[in-house]
Amino acid sequence: MDARNNPILVIDSGLGGLTVVRALLNRLPGERIIYFGDTARLPYGTKTPETIQHYIHQIVQWGLRHQPKHVVLACNTASALALPVMRGRFSPIPITGVVEPGARAAAGATNIPEPVIGVIATEATIRSGAYARAIHGRRHRAKLILTSTPLLVPMIEEGRSSDDPLVQLALKQYLKSMIDHKIDVLVLGCTHYPLLKKAIRTVVGPQVSIIDSAYQCAEDVAARLSRANLWASLRSGDDRNRFLAYVTDDPDRFAKLAPRFLGFVVDSPLRVAPEVLYQQEIRPAMCQPA
Amino acid sequence: MDARNNPILVIDSGLGGLTVVRALLNRLPGERIIYFGDTARLPYGTKTPETIQHYIHQIVQWGLRHQPKHVVLACNTASALALPVMRGRFSPIPITGVVEPGARAAAGATNIPEPVIGVIATEATIRSGAYARAIHGRRHRAKLILTSTPLLVPMIEEGRSSDDPLVQLALKQYLKSMIDHKIDVLVLGCTHYPLLKKAIRTVVGPQVSIIDSAYQCAEDVAARLSRANLWASLRSGDDRNRFLAYVTDDPDRFAKLAPRFLGFVVDSPLRVAPEVLYQQEIRPAMCQPA
Repeated sequence: MDARNNPILVIDSGLGGLTVVRALLNRLPGERIIYFGDTARLPYGTKTPETIQHYIHQIVQWGLRHQPKHVVLACNTASALALPVMRGRFSPIPITGVVEPGARAAAGATNIPEPVIGVIATEATIRSGAYARAIHGRRHRAKLILTSTPLLVPMIEEGRSSDDPLVQLALKQYLKSMIDHKIDVLVLGCTHYPLLKKAIRTVVGPQVSIIDSAYQCAEDVAARLSRANLWASLRSGDDRNRFLAYVTDDPDRFAKLAPRFLGFVVDSPLRVAPEVLYQQEIRPAMCQPA
Repeated sequence: MDARNNPILVIDSGLGGLTVVRALLNRLPGERIIYFGDTARLPYGTKTPETIQHYIHQIVQWGLRHQPKHVVLACNTASALALPVMRGRFSPIPITGVVEPGARAAAGATNIPEPVIGVIATEATIRSGAYARAIHGRRHRAKLILTSTPLLVPMIEEGRSSDDPLVQLALKQYLKSMIDHKIDVLVLGCTHYPLLKKAIRTVVGPQVSIIDSAYQCAEDVAARLSRANLWASLRSGDDRNRFLAYVTDDPDRFAKLAPRFLGFVVDSPLRVAPEVLYQQEIRPAMCQPA
């Protein structure tokens, strides 16, 4: 058994993590990706830390059957709220997220001594303070503007793109304070947002560095696999054949929306009903003798 | 034990059902309401019939401990996708929804022989065909225009109201085809939407009958309780004291947003974690001897 050829497990609340998959497939052409989208319980962005930690714990536990060599929490909300706890519980399996790589890139994106850095993300990600901590840990003199932008995900999932006047108006409203304060860097703190990059660029202007946390996450995974000597020894294959997806609800909706994020067509994913995730935690406790 | 003084159980995916609670409290001043908002798994509007039926089954099962004399599925998506199945499973407990009363009111709102009736609702409600069946069953010559409007719920939950330009632009986009076809009646097929009634009225004009399914649902419950001789014999009380809420996640967020829907301030609701709902269905099956 060569652990190097084990897959990377990518966990997300739904579809957004597929932008991370795309970046991983590009950056790591020999790796296999198992994707888990928790579509029966999405979105995570309005839920509590306890609930999100519980959901992610169930999914990592379920995912152990695939013997992942690395686990990626591809959802910013899950990274912000569940990553340290999961690392403790599932050690020594390496688990990484999207917040740290994004924050590192934001901190390094400019030489200005007191840069103004904007972050857009879900309610729960902003409230967690994870980006503020991660950026200030590296650039303590940065001025941060954090804005939750809860309509962008449903707009993207409805099929809207940068050309839609409603998307443009929403971005103008959400980014107004950042433009007034002349931000130098803007972190896209949700894996859906790169799909609206063109409209975001138009609103913030050409001088702002836009940080895509999906791309940064893939760079981070590549560096870690390299340090651990865990690059796959397989030949590189067709993207579609290196990708296997599971969802908790509605495989057809997933298959319909996924190509926009991935850049290639996928078969309907396999379904893992939420009750399967609950059964695996309830069963062992109940099988113990009284 | 006088069943007349048992509570009405109102089930919703989150907060929208509180517009039904408000209508019930106004219409039935002696009744007590137990509300269950499934905030850990909302929204239902993008999920499959099987998943929604499973969630609603768990909640009705859980709610039996309160011995409800009547159960209301206050969520249009749940009414559209789970009502007939739940009636069969939990008979003889009366279970009603919001789709039938709304469709009945729409069918009766005009004397025009071939009225044009618009319905706005979630993706899942529209896809279910429940409104189309219910309206055509009464007015088979009605011309229907059905449009899913997935951004309206997150806009309302973000705190936006009729005065917001983004809300107005979204409504203009969503209702364009209905205006072009000169609708006579518009059904608000989601319990959140009455909160945007002012902006909807502005877009569709004064000649259109707007049907609020929450109000129609309360009228329907009142008529059924009356026929079954199940009106409460209690004196009427303060709205706040006749209302008790449970949620599956984040009681504080619920308490913060609820007053907009209810018209009065509430205490933080009690929390019923999703695992409690799964345990009640897994335990009995597992306690049987092998």
